[in-house]
Amino acid sequence: MDLMNIMLEVTGSWSHFGGAVGAGLAAIGAGIGIGQIGKGATEAIARQPEAANDIRGGMILTAAFVEGVALFAVIAGLLAVLK
Amino acid sequence: MDLMNIMLEVTGSWSHFGGAVGAGLAAIGAGIGIGQIGKGATEAIARQPEAANDIRGGMILTAAFVEGVALFAVIAGLLAVLK
Amino acid sequence: MDLMNIMLEVTGSWSHFGGAVGAGLAAIGAGIGIGQIGKGATEAIARQPEAANDIRGGMILTAAFVEGVALFAVIAGLLAVLK
Repeated sequence: MDLMNIMLEVTGSWSHFGGAVGAGLAAIGAGIGIGQIGKGATEAIARQPEAANDIRGGMILTAAFVEGVALFAVIAGLLAVLK
Repeated sequence: MDLMNIMLEVTGSWSHFGGAVGAGLAAIGAGIGIGQIGKGATEAIARQPEAANDIRGGMILTAAFVEGVALFAVIAGLLAVLK
Repeated sequence: MDLMNIMLEVTGSWSHFGGAVGAGLAAIGAGIGIGQIGKGATEAIARQPEAANDIRGGMILTAAFVEGVALFAVIAGLLAVLK
């Protein structure tokens, strides 16, 4: 093992740093987004129980949108960690 | 132990830093998200106890979405710490 | 103790720093999340005492979700500190 391999290793260290922090930030995004959606949907069902199916449809659709982006970002973070 | 091994150790250090901070950020995300969902759901059940089943369904669904992303991000952090 | 041992000590330092900060962030997440859930649940039970069992069920479920992620993140922080 010579100096160049070590310097190469050093480069990977920042990848792991950024990957893990990026995955954490993605989880914050999912929390902010899906949290508001879930709060709005549960309160909406309580206000108008007859519309529960419509409300649930909108809830699942928007939550899936947020989830898609967040999972994609977590996978990007995982790839940076595993590199 | 010579200088090169020490420099190699330095590389891992930032991984651990980022992994632990990333896991903490993921926990903040879960807190923001599931906190709002739980608050909304408990208040919604109090407002319309007859709709408790619909409300509980929406609560569990959205909480599971947030939980999935957050656990995924914590695992990315753990991988960075254990690397 | 010569220069090399000192440099080796420096390497572990950032791990410990990150581990402690990450565990602290996880505690903030648990505080935000379970705080809102507990607030919502106590107010909900006060509003509709007959629905206390349903409300308690939702409260425990969501609080356990937040707790799971936060404990996991604290363990990641502990691992980084102990490394």
